Amino acid sequence: MFIHMKELQFRAKPEKPDPVYARKLQEVLGGQYGEMSVMMQYLFQGFNCRADRKYRDMLLDIGTEEIGHVEMLSTMIAQLLDGAPADQVDEAAKDPLIAAALGGMNPQHAIVSGLGATPTDSNGYPWNSKYIIASGNLLADFRANLNAESQGLVQVVRLYEQTTDPGVRDMLSFMIARDILHQNQWLAAIEEIEAMEGPIAPASFPRERSVEEATRQFMNFSVGEESREGRWANGPLPDGTGNFEYVANPAAYGDVPVLNPPAKHQHSTLGTGPYVVNEGIGK
Amino acid sequence: MFIHMKELQFRAKPEKPDPVYARKLQEVLGGQYGEMSVMMQYLFQGFNCRADRKYRDMLLDIGTEEIGHVEMLSTMIAQLLDGAPADQVDEAAKDPLIAAALGGMNPQHAIVSGLGATPTDSNGYPWNSKYIIASGNLLADFRANLNAESQGLVQVVRLYEQTTDPGVRDMLSFMIARDILHQNQWLAAIEEIEAMEGPIAPASFPRERSVEEATRQFMNFSVGEESREGRWANGPLPDGTGNFEYVANPAAYGDVPVLNPPAKHQHSTLGTGPYVVNEGIGK
Amino acid sequence: MFIHMKELQFRAKPEKPDPVYARKLQEVLGGQYGEMSVMMQYLFQGFNCRADRKYRDMLLDIGTEEIGHVEMLSTMIAQLLDGAPADQVDEAAKDPLIAAALGGMNPQHAIVSGLGATPTDSNGYPWNSKYIIASGNLLADFRANLNAESQGLVQVVRLYEQTTDPGVRDMLSFMIARDILHQNQWLAAIEEIEAMEGPIAPASFPRERSVEEATRQFMNFSVGEESREGRWANGPLPDGTGNFEYVANPAAYGDVPVLNPPAKHQHSTLGTGPYVVNEGIGK
Amino acid sequence: MFIHMKELQFRAKPEKPDPVYARKLQEVLGGQYGEMSVMMQYLFQGFNCRADRKYRDMLLDIGTEEIGHVEMLSTMIAQLLDGAPADQVDEAAKDPLIAAALGGMNPQHAIVSGLGATPTDSNGYPWNSKYIIASGNLLADFRANLNAESQGLVQVVRLYEQTTDPGVRDMLSFMIARDILHQNQWLAAIEEIEAMEGPIAPASFPRERSVEEATRQFMNFSVGEESREGRWANGPLPDGTGNFEYVANPAAYGDVPVLNPPAKHQHSTLGTGPYVVNEGIGK
Amino acid sequence: MFIHMKELQFRAKPEKPDPVYARKLQEVLGGQYGEMSVMMQYLFQGFNCRADRKYRDMLLDIGTEEIGHVEMLSTMIAQLLDGAPADQVDEAAKDPLIAAALGGMNPQHAIVSGLGATPTDSNGYPWNSKYIIASGNLLADFRANLNAESQGLVQVVRLYEQTTDPGVRDMLSFMIARDILHQNQWLAAIEEIEAMEGPIAPASFPRERSVEEATRQFMNFSVGEESREGRWANGPLPDGTGNFEYVANPAAYGDVPVLNPPAKHQHSTLGTGPYVVNEGIGK
Amino acid sequence: MFIHMKELQFRAKPEKPDPVYARKLQEVLGGQYGEMSVMMQYLFQGFNCRADRKYRDMLLDIGTEEIGHVEMLSTMIAQLLDGAPADQVDEAAKDPLIAAALGGMNPQHAIVSGLGATPTDSNGYPWNSKYIIASGNLLADFRANLNAESQGLVQVVRLYEQTTDPGVRDMLSFMIARDILHQNQWLAAIEEIEAMEGPIAPASFPRERSVEEATRQFMNFSVGEESREGRWANGPLPDGTGNFEYVANPAAYGDVPVLNPPAKHQHSTLGTGPYVVNEGIGK
Repeated sequence: MFIHMKELQFRAKPEKPDPVYARKLQEVLGGQYGEMSVMMQYLFQGFNCRADRKYRDMLLDIGTEEIGHVEMLSTMIAQLLDGAPADQVDEAAKDPLIAAALGGMNPQHAIVSGLGATPTDSNGYPWNSKYIIASGNLLADFRANLNAESQGLVQVVRLYEQTTDPGVRDMLSFMIARDILHQNQWLAAIEEIEAMEGPIAPASFPRERSVEEATRQFMNFSVGEESREGRWANGPLPDGTGNFEYVANPAAYGDVPVLNPPAKHQHSTLGTGPYVVNEGIGK
Repeated sequence: MFIHMKELQFRAKPEKPDPVYARKLQEVLGGQYGEMSVMMQYLFQGFNCRADRKYRDMLLDIGTEEIGHVEMLSTMIAQLLDGAPADQVDEAAKDPLIAAALGGMNPQHAIVSGLGATPTDSNGYPWNSKYIIASGNLLADFRANLNAESQGLVQVVRLYEQTTDPGVRDMLSFMIARDILHQNQWLAAIEEIEAMEGPIAPASFPRERSVEEATRQFMNFSVGEESREGRWANGPLPDGTGNFEYVANPAAYGDVPVLNPPAKHQHSTLGTGPYVVNEGIGK
Repeated sequence: MFIHMKELQFRAKPEKPDPVYARKLQEVLGGQYGEMSVMMQYLFQGFNCRADRKYRDMLLDIGTEEIGHVEMLSTMIAQLLDGAPADQVDEAAKDPLIAAALGGMNPQHAIVSGLGATPTDSNGYPWNSKYIIASGNLLADFRANLNAESQGLVQVVRLYEQTTDPGVRDMLSFMIARDILHQNQWLAAIEEIEAMEGPIAPASFPRERSVEEATRQFMNFSVGEESREGRWANGPLPDGTGNFEYVANPAAYGDVPVLNPPAKHQHSTLGTGPYVVNEGIGK
Repeated sequence: MFIHMKELQFRAKPEKPDPVYARKLQEVLGGQYGEMSVMMQYLFQGFNCRADRKYRDMLLDIGTEEIGHVEMLSTMIAQLLDGAPADQVDEAAKDPLIAAALGGMNPQHAIVSGLGATPTDSNGYPWNSKYIIASGNLLADFRANLNAESQGLVQVVRLYEQTTDPGVRDMLSFMIARDILHQNQWLAAIEEIEAMEGPIAPASFPRERSVEEATRQFMNFSVGEESREGRWANGPLPDGTGNFEYVANPAAYGDVPVLNPPAKHQHSTLGTGPYVVNEGIGK
Repeated sequence: MFIHMKELQFRAKPEKPDPVYARKLQEVLGGQYGEMSVMMQYLFQGFNCRADRKYRDMLLDIGTEEIGHVEMLSTMIAQLLDGAPADQVDEAAKDPLIAAALGGMNPQHAIVSGLGATPTDSNGYPWNSKYIIASGNLLADFRANLNAESQGLVQVVRLYEQTTDPGVRDMLSFMIARDILHQNQWLAAIEEIEAMEGPIAPASFPRERSVEEATRQFMNFSVGEESREGRWANGPLPDGTGNFEYVANPAAYGDVPVLNPPAKHQHSTLGTGPYVVNEGIGK
Repeated sequence: MFIHMKELQFRAKPEKPDPVYARKLQEVLGGQYGEMSVMMQYLFQGFNCRADRKYRDMLLDIGTEEIGHVEMLSTMIAQLLDGAPADQVDEAAKDPLIAAALGGMNPQHAIVSGLGATPTDSNGYPWNSKYIIASGNLLADFRANLNAESQGLVQVVRLYEQTTDPGVRDMLSFMIARDILHQNQWLAAIEEIEAMEGPIAPASFPRERSVEEATRQFMNFSVGEESREGRWANGPLPDGTGNFEYVANPAAYGDVPVLNPPAKHQHSTLGTGPYVVNEGIGK
């Protein structure tokens, strides 16, 4: 059960409207790695959590915070849209900035949402739940979360570069701080799990059932060996089971596949029909 | 430029057909974390790579290997579908196993693809490119890759549990090995980047522009403090800038937001119309 | 800003697991008219609200309640999935109920989500934000909300019919009550707005700019006149501007359209090329 | 079975081309609440209609009219695109209006559709059938229809504000008239159904099976009580079963949920593996 | 403008209900190559047609017929669903056929659509307009149409094999006939266009601007030359400009690509930050 | 199994950056008929191929070539993006070309992908696998392929018209050549299959089971007979079974459909509830 506090978690007020920037800011609201994604990812991981209660509580704490981030961003976007012009064609002839706005705005802000934020990315593509994962495996999911906060921070920092509005930057400086904290937090949580289970997710599959040598070999599927030079091809495996090997010319373990001819009832073949397989009735 | 070798990278031959399992196996072919996702993610990261050539080469080596995994899985699925019955209704009355198959098969395997693999997940949902990311930031992207291999391995292991076919398990034991290797590899690659840049992605944003205290505070957005007990709320921050703080009752930094009244040309208000803002012509 | 209370708003505990029903229940969690839809629709309408504060508060109150409904349903689904069998093939031969479960389960519950709820509908289709609307026009949006609660209640009632588990029915009986309340509530809110603005949304467009007679005419676009018998074709218009008229054979106001030939640079025509319009450089 | 009349239902001819406006007009052709949506919604409700024939006929009359609206809009858009420039880069340097067009056009109009309308919204997002509903419950569906006509009219009016082309406004003035008529019509149809069944959809669920008090209580899920002031929290319930009650501090009916530990075959746990649950064969 | 005739174009009445088959039949209603696709593809090609009026009329004739096919299929599906059981769990224990139905039905038929057809495919995936094309180039579009009728007929024939219901087969025998006619018709229309323009679409691009030798060479991008044996690698080119050549070992025309280092404002690099490119204000 | 050669198949280097054109070029990379589509379509047709090995090899040869086309286009797009400005607002005031770029760029190129290509079309819509087909029927699939190469070439030619950059045109002149070759190739492959099977796909359905006269009749579903004039309505059927007939006023074969009343457990009716069909337990 949830409760709403009417105050925003942080200030969200631009110095002046900027409908083109409003469109861009949508990316971190409703895009692949926007706030809706982390909000829903943490909430679903929490709701489904079958582990110790502290994990569930932690996940729901952060998920709940992210609902408030969706609120902040929506509020900011609505205000950036305040200046959207009514008649866009005629004014564009006078001023290249308006011409730019004409082209750069999301038309749905003026047609669909009444100058409000939309649950979409910067191209108007709707948020969808395939952006998120809640697998039940904590290590895998915390890595998904670390990834989400890393991609998210990269995007927020890029957006910070694309505005000089002090009000927008003020809000972004808080979101940046929280993304830094959340990266730290998932790093710490991963450290805690890896200390118990080791670094391979899931830990519970018996290693001897895998093809052993294939767990060590970096396979060079190209002509040329620049890929030989990285840490990923040299030194101990992070899971402690041996050392990386570099296979310059990987051989095929399998054969050329030969599929059976198609079943007649599929009507796929080159062949000698006509026939109906299920004779059934006359027609 | 790419070249095809006709041999499969590994054996992909089931002992006997199993159309219901064919549907399930689609998940790791065309699902959110299937082989199509890692294939396309690594290829796009490689094609767009602006860093040292060894990274590009490494990304394209693995991306190229994954094309071959798509090939293996497709080959396996086509063979699992060999036994799909033609007339599904009548036979179902005789045998609960066929009845199960009737319900459990993906009907598109029998209607659309001619008993071949489809580029979809286990519910027939099409693969789409929002499953993948190529951000240009190596640390963020390698975390995306580590996540993809972790989620992918969890799914493959679950699928291993759901079959006893020795041919299927044989192929999965190879895929499991490669997922283990790839987790090790991304862990190693991340270690290499973090050694240069530290653990926050991106490293290049000046920390003093963020709200400093918010980079340290775990905020408890719930009633009750179970979340206090984890590593994420105690001890040093992984990025070395201080220690976690637990804020039991986080205060709002912001105010209650008040949006401006709607622009008249939006026709959103409660109010005193009728009016048209752009008078233009008569009608 | 939001706070999480750890208790569920209502009991959500099935008497026994039922993985097939878990799949069905997903419809009202992550489907077109599921709880995720009303949650996100009310939250976005609230965040974007430019009208009197009572509307914003009311919208966010209900949106916040709906987050809790998502929590209840997720919790229920996780428990319904507790009994999902590990090896589905062999057991199916023994028992038609297991065979049914084999076919009727969502395979992603066992492969992707670790026997947890997914943010998808009963066919595994992901929730997306095109299910929702926040237009800024309160009358239009409250009608969207009334529709959502009506469709939602129809679906919940149908799901009530499809189970006899007392724990599931217990929870549904609460959700049904809330959907009834919410229909009442949107009816009341619409009544309040219509009392000020009349029943056409938006009220602010000057009626004289529309084609007057076309605002009264039910046009019979079929051979036969059964459609003449309803309230929609007889008596006063609900907005009080006249009476319905039934046009048995509607005439065209327009002509046969003739489009200009295609621009040469589009290479669409039947014609006399070859040509390149933008000569530019040699090739 | 359907027949095509070659004349348009209404005039659809712009005074001059305007490729940027063509993009915007796509919203009410192929967007969430565009003409494709009402066309397909009414047709499917009609095709599936199990009630008295007058409902089916009425639904199909309007659905058939809407096919003609899709035709009008497509015709208009094709003509607005007539002026799209061939070489967009060089001309943009000369004229801010062309620069605006360059940015503001949908590139797919010039690359994909040959300067024709596309079945997409103003951001090029494809129409999809999750925009529509045909539930079989007439009251719920007529509310969906009233919502669609309300959202649609709000959008058309906004588009009317964004052009001064007399030919475009001429066509919109007809579409506005029909949307007004259709709102009136669905209001009338709803009135007819509610007179028989009451205002809750569906009427057929026995009220005593719902949690009675929860059908009356507006629950205030926020700190602060602005939401107390509306009609939705005061006075009689529209369905006549009592009065609204305002619950300032709603209590939880449920407990803190505790989920069972994960099944071993899911490999989700923190734990003591390795193990494979289905031992099956050696690997 | 369109008119509805109340009679179906052909009989659509099953001998008995079959909810599992209803699900399958959805594929040719709302799937990638279902009747909704050809209906919308032909209508949009017709609405956008800038060529001689006979093409427009022909396209709209067939598009209009296809609306009637959507009607027939929807009617059939609604009747196949008549027998869907109310309480699916208990009855399944008694009868493997019901158990099969339980698994094989689309749950949305019983929850969402009130036992009516849905605008989706056999997996419940919604129809979307990216299934269709209207490019403005008649030759390209008629090939799209020939493809659609070919894929569609293959699917209908497969569905014919999967039922023995004489009523269903009766309707399918008509749909099969129309698909045969429509394949013939598009073959004839293509013949007419190719006679004027030759077989390459579009004909209007000056051939000398393409890399000449690359228009003749089949390139063997694999080890092994089975692909040498087909008509596609031997004999005259269908467009009459020469003969196919088989290139056993195609050489690269290009170099190894080297991308510029990332722009600093993208925060992508490994490097020496921190920096903000747009200094703007203090934060 | 696949191998990567580091050289590009052809040169891909623009003379100068052009971020607006980068957006447009995305259409033929990740759009409906872009290179990702042909790549995945040919690979899946090849992986699933149950016919003679030469077909499989040919399909995989071309599919493998297309992976290299995705690589070329991605490389080109990354370089076109090199000039994307960091602070787009202020510079736009100075120069209409920058203003145009501001509006015309895909914001995700600057926020999400780090100035790299994205797996999306020119509107940022993600590639998805419903763009492709692999039906198992070679004739149907080769027609799909011919269509894809025809639509693709039309798009590439249009893009050629929209740039004068010699480097871009150089690459396009190669892609145009390959599209011409591939059209020739599919025409030749179709010729080979049709020589064996005739022109109707699939050939294996017994013609006598279809409604015979409906395989010959062009039905005029409009008022007016312009459609009478084409090859599609006159002369021999391409499959040699007779001549086209033109039916000026097609009659309905079917009746007015009457559906059964809704099942009570669906709660759809106008009616006399309340009732619950599955009484089960008390609530």
